[in-house]
Amino acid sequence: MQLATVKEIYRETNRFLNQKVEISGWVRTLRTSKAFGFIEINDGSFFQNIQVVFEESLENFAEVGKLSISSAIRVQGELVPSPGAKQPFELKAETIEILSIAAADYPLQKKRHTFEYLRTIAHLRPRTNTFAAVFRLRSVIAYAIHKFFQEKGFVYVHTPIITGSDAEGAGEMFKVTALDLAQPPKDEEGNVDYSKDFFGRVTSLTVSGQLNVETYCMAFRNVYTFGPTFRAENSNTARHAAEFWMIEPEIAFANLADDMNLAEEMMKYLIQYALDNAPEEMAFFNNFVDKSLFKRLENILTSDFVRTTYTEAVEILEKEKEKAKFEYPVRWGMDLQTEHERYLTETIFQKPVFVTDYPKDIKAFYMRLNEDQKTVAAMDLLVPGVGEIIGGSQREERLDVLESRMQELGLSAEDYWWYLDLRRYGGVNHAGYGLGFERMIMYLTGMSNIRDVIAFPRTANFCEF
Amino acid sequence: MQLATVKEIYRETNRFLNQKVEISGWVRTLRTSKAFGFIEINDGSFFQNIQVVFEESLENFAEVGKLSISSAIRVQGELVPSPGAKQPFELKAETIEILSIAAADYPLQKKRHTFEYLRTIAHLRPRTNTFAAVFRLRSVIAYAIHKFFQEKGFVYVHTPIITGSDAEGAGEMFKVTALDLAQPPKDEEGNVDYSKDFFGRVTSLTVSGQLNVETYCMAFRNVYTFGPTFRAENSNTARHAAEFWMIEPEIAFANLADDMNLAEEMMKYLIQYALDNAPEEMAFFNNFVDKSLFKRLENILTSDFVRTTYTEAVEILEKEKEKAKFEYPVRWGMDLQTEHERYLTETIFQKPVFVTDYPKDIKAFYMRLNEDQKTVAAMDLLVPGVGEIIGGSQREERLDVLESRMQELGLSAEDYWWYLDLRRYGGVNHAGYGLGFERMIMYLTGMSNIRDVIAFPRTANFCEF
Repeated sequence: MQLATVKEIYRETNRFLNQKVEISGWVRTLRTSKAFGFIEINDGSFFQNIQVVFEESLENFAEVGKLSISSAIRVQGELVPSPGAKQPFELKAETIEILSIAAADYPLQKKRHTFEYLRTIAHLRPRTNTFAAVFRLRSVIAYAIHKFFQEKGFVYVHTPIITGSDAEGAGEMFKVTALDLAQPPKDEEGNVDYSKDFFGRVTSLTVSGQLNVETYCMAFRNVYTFGPTFRAENSNTARHAAEFWMIEPEIAFANLADDMNLAEEMMKYLIQYALDNAPEEMAFFNNFVDKSLFKRLENILTSDFVRTTYTEAVEILEKEKEKAKFEYPVRWGMDLQTEHERYLTETIFQKPVFVTDYPKDIKAFYMRLNEDQKTVAAMDLLVPGVGEIIGGSQREERLDVLESRMQELGLSAEDYWWYLDLRRYGGVNHAGYGLGFERMIMYLTGMSNIRDVIAFPRTANFCEF
Repeated sequence: MQLATVKEIYRETNRFLNQKVEISGWVRTLRTSKAFGFIEINDGSFFQNIQVVFEESLENFAEVGKLSISSAIRVQGELVPSPGAKQPFELKAETIEILSIAAADYPLQKKRHTFEYLRTIAHLRPRTNTFAAVFRLRSVIAYAIHKFFQEKGFVYVHTPIITGSDAEGAGEMFKVTALDLAQPPKDEEGNVDYSKDFFGRVTSLTVSGQLNVETYCMAFRNVYTFGPTFRAENSNTARHAAEFWMIEPEIAFANLADDMNLAEEMMKYLIQYALDNAPEEMAFFNNFVDKSLFKRLENILTSDFVRTTYTEAVEILEKEKEKAKFEYPVRWGMDLQTEHERYLTETIFQKPVFVTDYPKDIKAFYMRLNEDQKTVAAMDLLVPGVGEIIGGSQREERLDVLESRMQELGLSAEDYWWYLDLRRYGGVNHAGYGLGFERMIMYLTGMSNIRDVIAFPRTANFCEF
């Protein structure tokens, strides 16, 4: 008798075929007649189920025949070629031990459920096909990200989650406190006295690890962070969550072209990795979630990504604005809207597009000023079906330029003393970008709501589980 | 001319020897005489430096000779065997381009600095040998953890950081809020009205992902989380931080013995991985941080870990208490102190020890009650030099037992409805453990303060950078 997982049986069938095996798992479906029955078992190790056949010779035939969905069993028997066309093999049960009988009100019965409903039982939804596929893929891609960067010699940095600085002003921040909100200590002027808080100052949840990771870039050359980030923005859309994970690589002795090369290579690597390492899940997404998925991903794998400047992009969009019927106006100096981004990547170029060199006024203070004094060495990667998926830039390494830019924007040099130090002590040209991990998972699966690619999503007025 | 990193030159020397190469990096040391000079360059890709030799024939010989520490340069030249004994090769410079001149007040000059001082310049300390080694190892081990679990088919789950529940009461929690602390909204009774907060309820930073990850364990069989966790505890020790990373695997169809087998295998894997994949860094730690390091790690690699019950351990300790001169008393029912743990693993067994089956009253509610009704199926792993490094248990899968245990402890079944659901709907025996990531890094490096293995540590009254 060999212990086996369903994955092992599918992946190494020859090792188990016509052998006695033992598996444990949960009942997904059960059909029974007087003399025999079929159980589809899933043991969590693999996307697909394995079919168990049992006959009335089984000691506890009657009990087994009445098992409820999601009950757990341990089966011993022989793995034999299946006469049915639906599966290559089946397990002919000799004994079935009942480990646990699921209560009859188990919510995931055979019928289909809406994604909305399934969010209310987020603790059970990974047992459905869709969410089993989504969350296994999420795990596979998280690993692929580490593998990609580590094999290139990048150093992974855990940038801090709790921060004392307002970072880049990238968005509304959550406060972190150990004070009693009902009666916070006050100073003489009646203001909350944060010097009495745990950290002795105002602290928040990070919105980006970039500034911190730049410090490590100046030590290790190539680094990345991959961790949770937060926005206290009440935007109730399908693409925003209050808590999400971000990947932020940063490379030294590198310019914007190097940055784009890295992003392009990473995108292709992750797509190929998904197809190679989660073939059953990817096929499921292509069949049941987004029928254009494989075509869309294939297009990225085989394309050289377009590189065009913001100025060129705006010229193109201005020419096309009648035909395209944009809702928002297009003119130099404005940020591109999703409709513009999608038009560029889907209609004009029909493949991924890096738009570079945006007006400095619509970009962050740390982006490197170009020679024209009007634009910065920024880049956004636009992909068909989504629009922007990556945003990055070469960083301003020149101390004087950075300082005058900060002054223009009213940022205090004192608050950023350590960030400026990087420019004082051996600062070199460097660049980086941010990829929202959930956006990437949505892109790879075709899932359209960010709540459905996060195990326990946190959004405005929702923090269950 | 080949672009190269210092790592490539060390690892693939034959590819570059007697060839023209170009490297970029930072000046670590510089010695110069009238006719020639030596520069040790580090480019961040590798623990070791490379020596550059330059002669007065160099166009900018005078300028290069005056370069300050941490200035950045690009060197082109030939990689030649070194006549010196200290390095196998050196780079004979043909051109040296000065990329950036570090200000003269750069704090990391040649002299030694204390770790305490270096914490005040956490943005620069990864440029020192010690911290370059620590933080590269941290990255290598983070990857090793993913590799270990992923290659075993475990699914990585990002459990939530912001939580609405008090979890296991594992410690003081930080509150997360978007309310204005100066003027929080109040309800009719004058209490803070959290229904007006971002999530519409009280929310905190997680202290453990375990309860959440158990839900995925019942779907995917073998799962793990690896993410930040938080404690608002004002314990100003060398082993506690307010923000730290934790690894929490959870396995289904598994008991306490399986749990210990997994922990033992993981510990050995991580140690071996460090020795194999960061040999220069590990040798540095053994030479300069903890001269007993290799001996200590070797002992773990070659030992079968001891497994003893709490009851046996207490008997042993009671017998030895005179000889050992314990500060704290020993008797059945009390939690073991660090002195007891270390005595067991260092003096009695002289190798790693799992202590199992602790009294239920000193352990968490979710641990599985043993047949004696007095102990639970818990385990702590004690290792020489540290004491406890891992804590885990088999979980209570029996709904009725769990419910009555929660009632005993005054925990509300309503708050845990989804956790109890796991027992209603196909709950099976399962187990897991937690490993503090920083503890592991301290163990692997010999570093004795947790602040020195976290890039930007967060502790009471300290949240800089």
